[in-house]
Amino acid sequence: MHTLHHRDGHHGWDRTLAPRLRIAPGETVELRLADCFDGQLGADATAADVAALDLGRANPLTGPLTVEGARPGDALAVEVLALDVGARGWTTLIPGFGLLADEFPDPHVVVSEVRDGVVEVGGFARVAARPFLGTVGVAPAAPGPHSVIPPRNVGGNLDCRDVRAGATLLLPVEVPEALLSMGDPHAAQGDGEVCGTAVETTGTVSIRVDVVRGRAPAAPQLELPRGAPPASGPRLLTTGVGPDLHVGARDATRAMIERLGEEHGLDPADAYALCSVAAHLRILEVVDAPNWVVGLELDLDVLAGGPGRPGS
Amino acid sequence: MHTLHHRDGHHGWDRTLAPRLRIAPGETVELRLADCFDGQLGADATAADVAALDLGRANPLTGPLTVEGARPGDALAVEVLALDVGARGWTTLIPGFGLLADEFPDPHVVVSEVRDGVVEVGGFARVAARPFLGTVGVAPAAPGPHSVIPPRNVGGNLDCRDVRAGATLLLPVEVPEALLSMGDPHAAQGDGEVCGTAVETTGTVSIRVDVVRGRAPAAPQLELPRGAPPASGPRLLTTGVGPDLHVGARDATRAMIERLGEEHGLDPADAYALCSVAAHLRILEVVDAPNWVVGLELDLDVLAGGPGRPGS
Repeated sequence: MHTLHHRDGHHGWDRTLAPRLRIAPGETVELRLADCFDGQLGADATAADVAALDLGRANPLTGPLTVEGARPGDALAVEVLALDVGARGWTTLIPGFGLLADEFPDPHVVVSEVRDGVVEVGGFARVAARPFLGTVGVAPAAPGPHSVIPPRNVGGNLDCRDVRAGATLLLPVEVPEALLSMGDPHAAQGDGEVCGTAVETTGTVSIRVDVVRGRAPAAPQLELPRGAPPASGPRLLTTGVGPDLHVGARDATRAMIERLGEEHGLDPADAYALCSVAAHLRILEVVDAPNWVVGLELDLDVLAGGPGRPGS
Repeated sequence: MHTLHHRDGHHGWDRTLAPRLRIAPGETVELRLADCFDGQLGADATAADVAALDLGRANPLTGPLTVEGARPGDALAVEVLALDVGARGWTTLIPGFGLLADEFPDPHVVVSEVRDGVVEVGGFARVAARPFLGTVGVAPAAPGPHSVIPPRNVGGNLDCRDVRAGATLLLPVEVPEALLSMGDPHAAQGDGEVCGTAVETTGTVSIRVDVVRGRAPAAPQLELPRGAPPASGPRLLTTGVGPDLHVGARDATRAMIERLGEEHGLDPADAYALCSVAAHLRILEVVDAPNWVVGLELDLDVLAGGPGRPGS
């Protein structure tokens, strides 16, 4: 087991960054992750503290690590083995940022406590803790640096709340040995992350990394295990990443149809019809301008005997 | 209990349609509903039958009924008491229609059987039956006729899979006595209805209709009861309806913030932050051009003690 600390980190994406660690496919790594404010907010954070944030330090990543043998055109499979998050989190309204930025011009902060699987949200709500990684990505082929804020086809700030323990994230490798980095742990978030931030916190994640030769997806995909409700069966979540939600929905749907054909032998028209009756379009992230993330989620049990099968 | 048959119906929306029935607030009505193809497809339907469909007959509605005392500015509350659907359903790819219409130019049909709570989808998949009304709406104030295909702020072809037994749909009344109509039963559908149709079938629905004085929402809203997983608590689903998914997401979020303020006393900035950490943006419908429907869903238990409360 290798370990990377968050001082082993960087801001933004760049294919020329020096790797902090080199691993072989199949190896596991533990990474310590800073919160997206890089420790600038405390237990008594106020709106004034939000206004004073140095946003140049936003979303620090731990990494990058290189994966032996990963080549452009491969998929990098990042399995999240475990994720522990901090006991405190912050949700901020940052001027100019968020789905309703024009209607909420003032800074604001809600401080949360995370305890026993529950997030106490600012003393006025309680939400089940559901820790996930807001940002996981590989270096883009295009010469950088590139901002860490927008999600990309190579991943990054996807803010997809299903990148959590048990999930495997498939990313397209664009540069030799991939250059994988991650950060931005969240204790809870809704699909969309509408105000621009989740319950932002620190974390420690264990991952296993593998290479799937020649199977780079057009955009990130997630393989989700059979789990507790509401996830009844193993699920596949395809995504579309870009500045237009409608195009993103199309991209996610096309990717699902392709996988249903490749892996389940479905005729494309049947696969498309099945998506219509059983798969769900989710707006996973709509605040990390200029790119949004749309997901299409399918419970794969519909192809394995369905809800009436023995034992279901 | 009043009954309306689907021969008591119409195509399209028009404020000048003659009402088929007049009820008082609080009364219940049973409506018999045709399938969206108006019976043109049979058990052995083929792609050729889809190509030959008379789309001028698409989506026939039962109604309209008038509600005594309902006035512009009021909300009409339509509670779905029970919905039974037919034993057979059709999912079609209609040339020129659907999220990937340009990539699927040919007609196609998948015939499904609905039995014991399960939809056997064309012999290749099994999906839990989850019957709902694809279309419920009131007459727009603007002089008609208007096509029945696009959803509108007054409802209509929302294709929101949560308009099912137990749910209460709130619609803005725009003309005196509302002129309520419905149809388009679905045995199952995913969020988005990506290929353009669900498991289209016939149905019989019982509803109770009430008037909430002066509380017309900007767009439809749904109040959902506490139910079986995946719905853990009572939920509120606000929507945005229009040609732009991003604007729809904004409208749904704004509506949720308003209701959290009015009914739970939350400060708007706190409500916005709560939406970000606990509410989910869903693309409910993205095929009924030119309007799409985006929903924001919040489990209201987060405001009532949350997931750690006794008995949860």
